Amino acid sequence: MRAISIKHPGSAEVLEEINVPVPVPQKGELLIKVHTAAVNRTDIMRRENQELQPPYPILGVEVAGEVIENASGRSEFSKGTRVYGLVNLGGYAEYAVMPADRAILLPESVDYIAAAGIAEVFLTAYQTLYWLGNLQKEETVLIHAGASGVGTSAIQLAKQLSQAKVIVTAGSEEKLAFCKELGADEGINYKTQDFAKEIQRITEGQGVDVILDFVGASYWEKNLASIAVDGRWILIGLLSGTIVEKVDISLLLQKRIQLIGTLLTPRSDEYKANLTQEFMREVDPYFESNKVRPIIDRTFPFEKAKEAQEYMEANKNIGKIILTISE
Amino acid sequence: MRAISIKHPGSAEVLEEINVPVPVPQKGELLIKVHTAAVNRTDIMRRENQELQPPYPILGVEVAGEVIENASGRSEFSKGTRVYGLVNLGGYAEYAVMPADRAILLPESVDYIAAAGIAEVFLTAYQTLYWLGNLQKEETVLIHAGASGVGTSAIQLAKQLSQAKVIVTAGSEEKLAFCKELGADEGINYKTQDFAKEIQRITEGQGVDVILDFVGASYWEKNLASIAVDGRWILIGLLSGTIVEKVDISLLLQKRIQLIGTLLTPRSDEYKANLTQEFMREVDPYFESNKVRPIIDRTFPFEKAKEAQEYMEANKNIGKIILTISE
Repeated sequence: MRAISIKHPGSAEVLEEINVPVPVPQKGELLIKVHTAAVNRTDIMRRENQELQPPYPILGVEVAGEVIENASGRSEFSKGTRVYGLVNLGGYAEYAVMPADRAILLPESVDYIAAAGIAEVFLTAYQTLYWLGNLQKEETVLIHAGASGVGTSAIQLAKQLSQAKVIVTAGSEEKLAFCKELGADEGINYKTQDFAKEIQRITEGQGVDVILDFVGASYWEKNLASIAVDGRWILIGLLSGTIVEKVDISLLLQKRIQLIGTLLTPRSDEYKANLTQEFMREVDPYFESNKVRPIIDRTFPFEKAKEAQEYMEANKNIGKIILTISE
Repeated sequence: MRAISIKHPGSAEVLEEINVPVPVPQKGELLIKVHTAAVNRTDIMRRENQELQPPYPILGVEVAGEVIENASGRSEFSKGTRVYGLVNLGGYAEYAVMPADRAILLPESVDYIAAAGIAEVFLTAYQTLYWLGNLQKEETVLIHAGASGVGTSAIQLAKQLSQAKVIVTAGSEEKLAFCKELGADEGINYKTQDFAKEIQRITEGQGVDVILDFVGASYWEKNLASIAVDGRWILIGLLSGTIVEKVDISLLLQKRIQLIGTLLTPRSDEYKANLTQEFMREVDPYFESNKVRPIIDRTFPFEKAKEAQEYMEANKNIGKIILTISE
């Protein structure tokens, strides 16, 4: 089968198409005919990782496709079933194996291009809002980087599942308008406004119950000022760096803040399986009825994986970048 | 009735005995004949609070005694029932009112002196270990200030309820020996040992699942080094100050740490009621069978409230200081 690996660690130039045998699913796994695969930042980080030793892996951790072989014994995954989800590498390929407990049934109404854009961002958003942030009905949530993949997913989930009041930050009016289309109640342009002041105004001094923070160090003080008593502050990215010069921890006590760091990728298979199962149960109806949708920026054919990764590296996308592999 | 208030904010010299009417319980409350009242740090902080305006309150937030009048409609609190728990001020007095949903039935085997030493430290320890720290069976917990009131309570709860591996820090060999008598598995003298190194050794590099941190700023780096992946770090005191310089927040993500600030006193009545009910259900059997016990340092008669507070201010006690008010 055709697949995409690397010649050696480096820039997008090192990507190369290889021809390898179709993988054999082990117990508990599915063999998937891959129709679409998402391009993720983790693919680029892996490609650049100078510590990688040959044989180099097939890139890609997120696919949509149909079941070709079911070695899991689970009857819902009969041959031809349309599924999507996360794989342990091997996604940029004509066929891939996926642990059955991470496969999500694809509703009729969602096509393969959209499907490849759901799992990573929506599972992260769901985990962050609900498993870590314990978001309750009609609470207020502040989502930084609202136009990012996880941000656009979190806006929709918070609004649809919890009727939350959703406040986002982003760096352009275009991005803020897009967030509002998805359901955000308030948008703050962090380039022209002081978000801490805006949060005080919008929440009438109460602060927000949950913060999704992709930014880290440079937002520390303002997040601390913006969070409500008993607030949950979830740290899921460090776009602005890792060092906070001076931390006053007394506010953590006085406001009884829960500050929770997280990364989804390194979690255990069991954790991911449980998250996937709950996600499927709770969120699938919203995809079926099109109340929640993945944001797709554009597609590239399989042969253009280099261009697709370079496009991501240029940071111009709003939404996912998808490789189309078969019809 | 006799009660203890202050002449004006200041040192222990300002305490004065006053004579006031017996309080009248409102709906949902109990009138308690107070047998014993605990001296707490919050009493001293209130006494010193220069913002207090007259009329000055009767001090005391923690009592044990018998029900004299039951305005709660709850049948378990008939006249003469022995109870203990937290009150909203008014504890240093012959009679006090207590919300019925914060009253805890006193087992036969526990006397009034011990009873006045349970609620504040054990409720805090229980809340911290279980509601915030989510301590699981046989996990490892690091309890700083192990010989403190909350520390000695937490050691016993973690050991008896969860068979946890309990590691404590304290500043003297005498205190460490005392912690081990209560069930601690390992003791670290923070004056002569590097606790982060000891934790690495004891846990074979895994770190601890839960940290109870009363210390704050000066332990920041070492706590961060000592906590396990998915660890819960509960910040319940700031004995060493509030400012941490140059905090690297990347470890919060990589280790997926939950850093949770808390204070019990300012929480809502509903929160305290729920905590009290669960505590009574889960922990009462351990008091009944004497597997868990409050640590009492010494008692003072009611007339010696000044001496009792000065004794606390001298920081010489291990365990609670109790005022005895009636037989």
